[in-house]
Amino acid sequence: MTTSPIADAKPIRTAGITAARGFRAAGLAAGIKASGAPDLALVVNEGPIDSAAAVFTTNKVKAAPVLWSQQAVADGRLRAVVLNSGGANACTGPEGFQDTHATAEKVAAVLEISAVDVAVCSTGLIGERLPMAQLLSGVDSAAAALDGTGQAGLDAATAVLTTDSKPKQSALTHPDGWSVGGFAKGAGMLAPNMATMLSVLTTDAQIEPAALAEHLRAVTKLTYDRLDVDGSTSTNDTVLLLASGSSGVSPDPAEFVRVLTAVCGDLVKQLQGDAEGVTKEVSVTVQGAASEQDAVTVARVVARDSLVKTAFFGSDPNWGRIVMAVGNAQAQVDPDRLDVAVNGVLLCQAGTRAADRDGADLSGRDIQVVIDLHLGEAAATVLTTDLSHDYVEENSAYSS
Amino acid sequence: MTTSPIADAKPIRTAGITAARGFRAAGLAAGIKASGAPDLALVVNEGPIDSAAAVFTTNKVKAAPVLWSQQAVADGRLRAVVLNSGGANACTGPEGFQDTHATAEKVAAVLEISAVDVAVCSTGLIGERLPMAQLLSGVDSAAAALDGTGQAGLDAATAVLTTDSKPKQSALTHPDGWSVGGFAKGAGMLAPNMATMLSVLTTDAQIEPAALAEHLRAVTKLTYDRLDVDGSTSTNDTVLLLASGSSGVSPDPAEFVRVLTAVCGDLVKQLQGDAEGVTKEVSVTVQGAASEQDAVTVARVVARDSLVKTAFFGSDPNWGRIVMAVGNAQAQVDPDRLDVAVNGVLLCQAGTRAADRDGADLSGRDIQVVIDLHLGEAAATVLTTDLSHDYVEENSAYSS
Repeated sequence: MTTSPIADAKPIRTAGITAARGFRAAGLAAGIKASGAPDLALVVNEGPIDSAAAVFTTNKVKAAPVLWSQQAVADGRLRAVVLNSGGANACTGPEGFQDTHATAEKVAAVLEISAVDVAVCSTGLIGERLPMAQLLSGVDSAAAALDGTGQAGLDAATAVLTTDSKPKQSALTHPDGWSVGGFAKGAGMLAPNMATMLSVLTTDAQIEPAALAEHLRAVTKLTYDRLDVDGSTSTNDTVLLLASGSSGVSPDPAEFVRVLTAVCGDLVKQLQGDAEGVTKEVSVTVQGAASEQDAVTVARVVARDSLVKTAFFGSDPNWGRIVMAVGNAQAQVDPDRLDVAVNGVLLCQAGTRAADRDGADLSGRDIQVVIDLHLGEAAATVLTTDLSHDYVEENSAYSS
Repeated sequence: MTTSPIADAKPIRTAGITAARGFRAAGLAAGIKASGAPDLALVVNEGPIDSAAAVFTTNKVKAAPVLWSQQAVADGRLRAVVLNSGGANACTGPEGFQDTHATAEKVAAVLEISAVDVAVCSTGLIGERLPMAQLLSGVDSAAAALDGTGQAGLDAATAVLTTDSKPKQSALTHPDGWSVGGFAKGAGMLAPNMATMLSVLTTDAQIEPAALAEHLRAVTKLTYDRLDVDGSTSTNDTVLLLASGSSGVSPDPAEFVRVLTAVCGDLVKQLQGDAEGVTKEVSVTVQGAASEQDAVTVARVVARDSLVKTAFFGSDPNWGRIVMAVGNAQAQVDPDRLDVAVNGVLLCQAGTRAADRDGADLSGRDIQVVIDLHLGEAAATVLTTDLSHDYVEENSAYSS
């Protein structure tokens, strides 16, 4: 068995989309947000190739930019991505779709490319039209500011933020001379199959569209799809992966998936750590499941349960609520075989109390829940947070 | 079309299980709760008949008293119900089941009946054994205190409370001379298919077990099953319906269902109004659905969504979050036909903004959401609450 040269490599967070060669980026305040905070980002793939892949929200209600970008990426090619915060452009009808179309046309005109090679992403309040004059004029400014520096990548990562407290970047370079970089935003409405989450990933590896799509789907399934903050899947979730090929290297597919997984996993950890009102970072691992689907289902039900999450907020190793949640999952479960360990202490064995709950120390920020169903070999981990006063505060005050 | 003589009758809340003749009850502090609050209730059906029906939790993890009572009621006959708060006797293994069995045997011995005619209900913390000495000695005291007065019914309704702030009773008498009475408890872990909810219903109508079971299932499906406070279905949920026949009247089945629905609906409204941390009583109605199942599914997803519920806590008519939740439902939904009205104001029409959100006044305690899918004729309403600071506080501090 060959050891991967990047098996133990950790991505860095001081670089992002411009860590991959062949990309330029910009981020600035276009006046979409009343606050004057940065709200417009542009990412351009300068080639030589323009392979692209994407994964979109599973919500039946899809924002205009999602409907547009699905079409734009259908041929596996993108030259640019324009992203705005300050408005989701969702539930805005045909006019909202026209706004997205006009945005893509504007980017195409400024960059002298085709509009169908421009993806559009939006995030913010649902149901409001975007201030198009500011947005279109912002595209001019962003195009003028495009740069391949780390700062330009950070500017783009910053301009997409909503309730996030900080930008989230990650990058990893393979010894063979190619890199993957990316940014992500999202702090609430975070749930399976994408979350109110926008992420742009870049690579200078040489990869054809079909392979790129296959790799992205495989990796998001194990990373973005396994973060569940509040069970709500948004109307706008989008993950884009662009390949410039400028390294000249066609990587081993397994190595590429490994690097992409490391970068996406690192971005997901940052999303979890910056989720709205988070005071605990919780991982729920289900092992011994009859199938991976069962493992994911059980982990997700536990990760979503309000009573489990409020107990964690109170640093309470309340395994009874965990068992209750497991019993509600649409999965194969035998109550009499169920083990539950919290932060390394086996609190429930074979469905009954195994140790005093006070033995598990939940005073720190990290909480690991391990549930063994003893029914098979499959396992899965879902990441979540606690349900805190600040979550309630932020979401009762902020219109999103 | 005949008008029912009780079509507009409202149940009263000053009477409960002893409103039906042929029942005696008691409730007292047996020392199960460390606080010294009432924690043991006994209900006895003195006949002449002993028909009984029950509906239990759908959670795969069932508490010992649920496993016992399922067997006890299997023949459609019960003579007594013993209930305790202060401990759920769930996840307590074979020893916990022995404790339930011993409790039923004790009641049987004291009342000189058979243990298989005694149902047992428990509520409280999961995973702890019950203090059996106190419980069994409490059964003696309860049997000695049995009475048919309204006060005795209220004592029983009080002894089952956990985080509830007050007892919940309801009763309605039909002009034909028979009554239905009942109590319910439950303030958190309230969700479809029962909730951490115990309810005992009584009637002095003459009804055979098979019909009783059919009526109970039909009514709980439209009442208890349509309350969803936090999406968590407990290990102990039980609804019992006992018929003494002491009125000598065999009611028209439709009339019986009508009265039982009125009483159960009234108890559910009380559960909603006393839910943990509630500041808003929310009803989510979905109409124009392709099927009733779709209507219930969509209403439930909206009623469970943490972002919708925190918005309501903030008195924010955030229809965008409602539409987002609708789009996440596993049901037939056309985003372009979706109407959403909140407190009578149509905020979203055909999937886009219809009126300024500030037009909907959510400052009061009641919030009505009406979602029209425009896909069919089916409709359903699910009741829920907001997600408030007090919900978080109560559930992070209270071990249940």
